Amino acid sequence: MIERVLIIGTGLIGASVGLALRAAGFAGRIDGWDVNALELSAATAMGALDGAAGNEWGALELARQADAIVLAVPVLAIKDWMEKLAPVTGAGQLITDVGSTKLEIVELAAKLFDDPQQKAIFLPGHPMAGKESGGAMLAEGTLFNNAMWLFTPCSEEMAPIEKDWRMWVGLFGTRSLDMDPRRHDEMCAWVSHLPQMLSTALAALLEEKFGDAPEIGAIGGRALRETTRLGASPYSMWRDVAMTNTTPITETLLALEQRLTHVRENLRTPGLREEFDLANKFRVRRS
Amino acid sequence: MIERVLIIGTGLIGASVGLALRAAGFAGRIDGWDVNALELSAATAMGALDGAAGNEWGALELARQADAIVLAVPVLAIKDWMEKLAPVTGAGQLITDVGSTKLEIVELAAKLFDDPQQKAIFLPGHPMAGKESGGAMLAEGTLFNNAMWLFTPCSEEMAPIEKDWRMWVGLFGTRSLDMDPRRHDEMCAWVSHLPQMLSTALAALLEEKFGDAPEIGAIGGRALRETTRLGASPYSMWRDVAMTNTTPITETLLALEQRLTHVRENLRTPGLREEFDLANKFRVRRS
Repeated sequence: MIERVLIIGTGLIGASVGLALRAAGFAGRIDGWDVNALELSAATAMGALDGAAGNEWGALELARQADAIVLAVPVLAIKDWMEKLAPVTGAGQLITDVGSTKLEIVELAAKLFDDPQQKAIFLPGHPMAGKESGGAMLAEGTLFNNAMWLFTPCSEEMAPIEKDWRMWVGLFGTRSLDMDPRRHDEMCAWVSHLPQMLSTALAALLEEKFGDAPEIGAIGGRALRETTRLGASPYSMWRDVAMTNTTPITETLLALEQRLTHVRENLRTPGLREEFDLANKFRVRRS
Repeated sequence: MIERVLIIGTGLIGASVGLALRAAGFAGRIDGWDVNALELSAATAMGALDGAAGNEWGALELARQADAIVLAVPVLAIKDWMEKLAPVTGAGQLITDVGSTKLEIVELAAKLFDDPQQKAIFLPGHPMAGKESGGAMLAEGTLFNNAMWLFTPCSEEMAPIEKDWRMWVGLFGTRSLDMDPRRHDEMCAWVSHLPQMLSTALAALLEEKFGDAPEIGAIGGRALRETTRLGASPYSMWRDVAMTNTTPITETLLALEQRLTHVRENLRTPGLREEFDLANKFRVRRS
């Protein structure tokens, strides 16, 4: 059913979607557009795309012809593209996204794509995959293998083209789960956005305190490497996550601050044992 | 020179020292003692030890005969063993340890092993290696390969037996660095104890909030796994770290709490960009 795909944003995720489609046997045409010419040419060179739009107007023209449009840009840019695509797309087309937060996207989709008889179907998605650095150069057709691909559908009905896209996503090697968008954003604040913010805060703190002191490199081991790894994540993506999920992230940060205070005040009391017991339990459950 | 080694505490680190000595070609005798009979028999069964003491008195008797005694127990237990070993050891013997904090150990060693003409030489050590779970069953002869082995020497002179021990440690595949013990404890608070407490606090928080909610397992990815991995660490070891390095750990936790507050208050301001920029810089420096 889906024979023409347009990928808007051909960085790590967008280019990986192109490569994963090809690896899964997709025989149709894949076009792409990225505001960054380097990302666009890298994605084309590695075989993620058959063709590239020359500019934004070209992308909108390709959007008219596409069966499925994949928005693989940061969340605020996704919202901009939804506004641009609404007037040039129509019934029978599918627009989907890979944004990290879903509530604002779902709310906008409810306004823009509210009538399946006349408008494109919008399917909000979120692959739980990535790397700490972005860019098409790091894209891989196996990036989504064994990953969870979340959906926060706007409608209970599932049109054939939506089923078709979900089938391709399944062929990428993913599992998938449908969630309520508000619940999605809250849960992602805990399991993804909080780990990111704390890793950024820890790395920033150490950078400010130690700069290039050689001992950090000499004595820091796996513990330091793992807890600061996400410090490499790009602001460009996380700014939009922070902007569109501020309240849930604020709650998780506040809770962690209070928890750290509790640990600090109990370094020499049995309260520390309780913290270790709870943490041990969390890990045992997940091993 | 070192022909008889006694390892006190034959868990992950102690048993790995035995295996690493053998792998490095040590042809002498290795005895061991652990208050936990299971650890002791596991370490013997895997070839980390030639013999095992039957009880603590047996261990003290073996200590009289050993050239080198390795204390591979938590820090407060190391201090207990130093008190027990001082009267039964003497000139020409080496006692070394693998404790995670060094200042209290160095201070005690200065009292107990203050005369190389009459008393054993005490060499405080700290291999930066381990796993999130302990126990002899996880021991490996290659555990220290490429790891940093820190020393915080009590004396500027280096007796031949100390040189010999350092040689064996080098043959384990380690690099080594001599540090001032106070500086050691401060730096380890930042690069090791803070990541541990943070990981424990995050895992404890998530355990209390979500228990066995299936979504955590379903949508949590590498970010969650890495930032909570140390949550599996045993309280038995970390209690002693917290007890013997309270002030430096308190300082690092307080600094991180303030940093997280700053991130929380700047989720929608350019202040967040500055945090990401600093964190990016920290990671670039270390990649």
